[in-house]
Amino acid sequence: MTTQPPRPAPGPEQQEREAELVDRVAASFDSCPDPRLRQLMSGLVRHLHAYIREVRLTEEEWNRAIDFLTRCGHLTDDRRQEFILLSDVLGASMQTVTVNNEAYDDATEATVFGPFFVADSPAVPLGGDIAAGAPGEPCWVEGTVTDSAGTPLAGARIEVWEADETGHYDVQYDDHRTAARGHLFSDSQGRFRFWAVTPTPYPIPHDGPVGKLLESVGRSPMRASHLHFKVAHEGCRTLVTHIFVRGDELLDSDAVFGVKESLVKDFERQPADVPTPDGRSTQGPWSRVRFDIVLAPAQP
Amino acid sequence: MTTQPPRPAPGPEQQEREAELVDRVAASFDSCPDPRLRQLMSGLVRHLHAYIREVRLTEEEWNRAIDFLTRCGHLTDDRRQEFILLSDVLGASMQTVTVNNEAYDDATEATVFGPFFVADSPAVPLGGDIAAGAPGEPCWVEGTVTDSAGTPLAGARIEVWEADETGHYDVQYDDHRTAARGHLFSDSQGRFRFWAVTPTPYPIPHDGPVGKLLESVGRSPMRASHLHFKVAHEGCRTLVTHIFVRGDELLDSDAVFGVKESLVKDFERQPADVPTPDGRSTQGPWSRVRFDIVLAPAQP
Ligand SMILES: [Fe+2]
Ligand SMILES: [Fe+2]
Repeated sequence: MTTQPPRPAPGPEQQEREAELVDRVAASFDSCPDPRLRQLMSGLVRHLHAYIREVRLTEEEWNRAIDFLTRCGHLTDDRRQEFILLSDVLGASMQTVTVNNEAYDDATEATVFGPFFVADSPAVPLGGDIAAGAPGEPCWVEGTVTDSAGTPLAGARIEVWEADETGHYDVQYDDHRTAARGHLFSDSQGRFRFWAVTPTPYPIPHDGPVGKLLESVGRSPMRASHLHFKVAHEGCRTLVTHIFVRGDELLDSDAVFGVKESLVKDFERQPADVPTPDGRSTQGPWSRVRFDIVLAPAQP
Repeated sequence: MTTQPPRPAPGPEQQEREAELVDRVAASFDSCPDPRLRQLMSGLVRHLHAYIREVRLTEEEWNRAIDFLTRCGHLTDDRRQEFILLSDVLGASMQTVTVNNEAYDDATEATVFGPFFVADSPAVPLGGDIAAGAPGEPCWVEGTVTDSAGTPLAGARIEVWEADETGHYDVQYDDHRTAARGHLFSDSQGRFRFWAVTPTPYPIPHDGPVGKLLESVGRSPMRASHLHFKVAHEGCRTLVTHIFVRGDELLDSDAVFGVKESLVKDFERQPADVPTPDGRSTQGPWSRVRFDIVLAPAQP
């Protein structure tokens, strides 16, 4: 690996010119009638200019950045959102989730929403199977929903969705199937349980400019195996999160930085001959995982 | 104007989570084989995350940003480049020019290139007229090209281009005209002189998302009146710049932040009866301006 010769620091006259420009651009938003928009724009200008000055961006690099954004724009349509992918692989999506779900006591951590949620998922009874034919190893999921005082939350709406064992969500197939997604409600003691499939890894779409970028920098497009949750209860902050599979070798290189240590769970592999919790016959090995969910108050 | 209630600062656990994410994302570029690309990406991540954390970007604002970029991408084609416009109105284009043209002694300051340069402009003799029929008040432009020791630079290639008095460049018309652009060479004493038209203001394209943004923040899309120069001489740093018209009321609100005090020149208005320097009859008032150009060495 080569290193570049250090560039001499810009002299005082040059620094003055650069700083004066930043101030002038930031001040151009001073008469913005919306104070929040003013804050967003002047902050954007200060950080963007700090970046250009720090890395001494060349005009050729600037041209390549314009071209990159153009290619992202041209690939983006109703089904493909390359700018969201870009935000994801820069960790900007995860940072936005993080600042909007501030740490609260032992409340379960949030992670990225992802592009595969569908609003009107099938209702599944407690103990039912969300797989609905999705290929994969059966996985028993159980846990509780409580507040941070440990009080069970009855009737919490729990949405779950995941890829099948080939790494595809139902909406990625052309046959309009609905599979490996559903919603259920916690019981009077805050408990829930359902069958799903054991999560497997999948790549984010990587045939566009973002995929090319990942390749150039030596990063993988793979997401660590996960099961999506969205959990809502009145008076509580709605939680959007995943659980991850302990031991998955992708935990440290998740393409979108969604992994939090607290969300890595033991998916215990069970041989075919171990009886299932509800007596169901799995005709092969299965797994089980426990996920106890703690919701923060809506307005901490 | 309303002010927003200050948000409580994030607690230590929350700060830790945010900072850990930044480090994790920046480190994901550690094995990038190109050290410059690694520097560009990790620097981008640090500044982008600092912005998100500082303004506490909401998920709705993030969605609007994604939508904004998408609309810019969909408008961009071979003739319209909305991402360059965005860079321009954020001063990012001007800052990039600034860091790549560092202050050197009394070398003439650079400014933005703009989208209207054409490579194969007509050759114009010294004292000739670049207007070529472009409507506008005649303007006599003269000056010298020297190095910063004051040594005249003979044979410097001087490209000039400008909008006509209606605010349009030739390439913005559909009739393939060539007008108000040309190139000439400094004489043996580094001198140059030509006729042009007195610069007038014009708006950047503002019928797209960038124009809408300017409107939302209360900014004008107008550029201060200017005449473009590109000056090249062997052994010298090529200079891309403008001269601006002293007294123009748009000097303080140029949409792309191209104005530098050192580039504001006296365009002296002359009544119709004042003889022109070369005896040409102008059939009306005219103006004259002097621009002495100092080139920095190619590698200071
Ligand atoms: Fe997912
Ligand atoms: Fe221009």
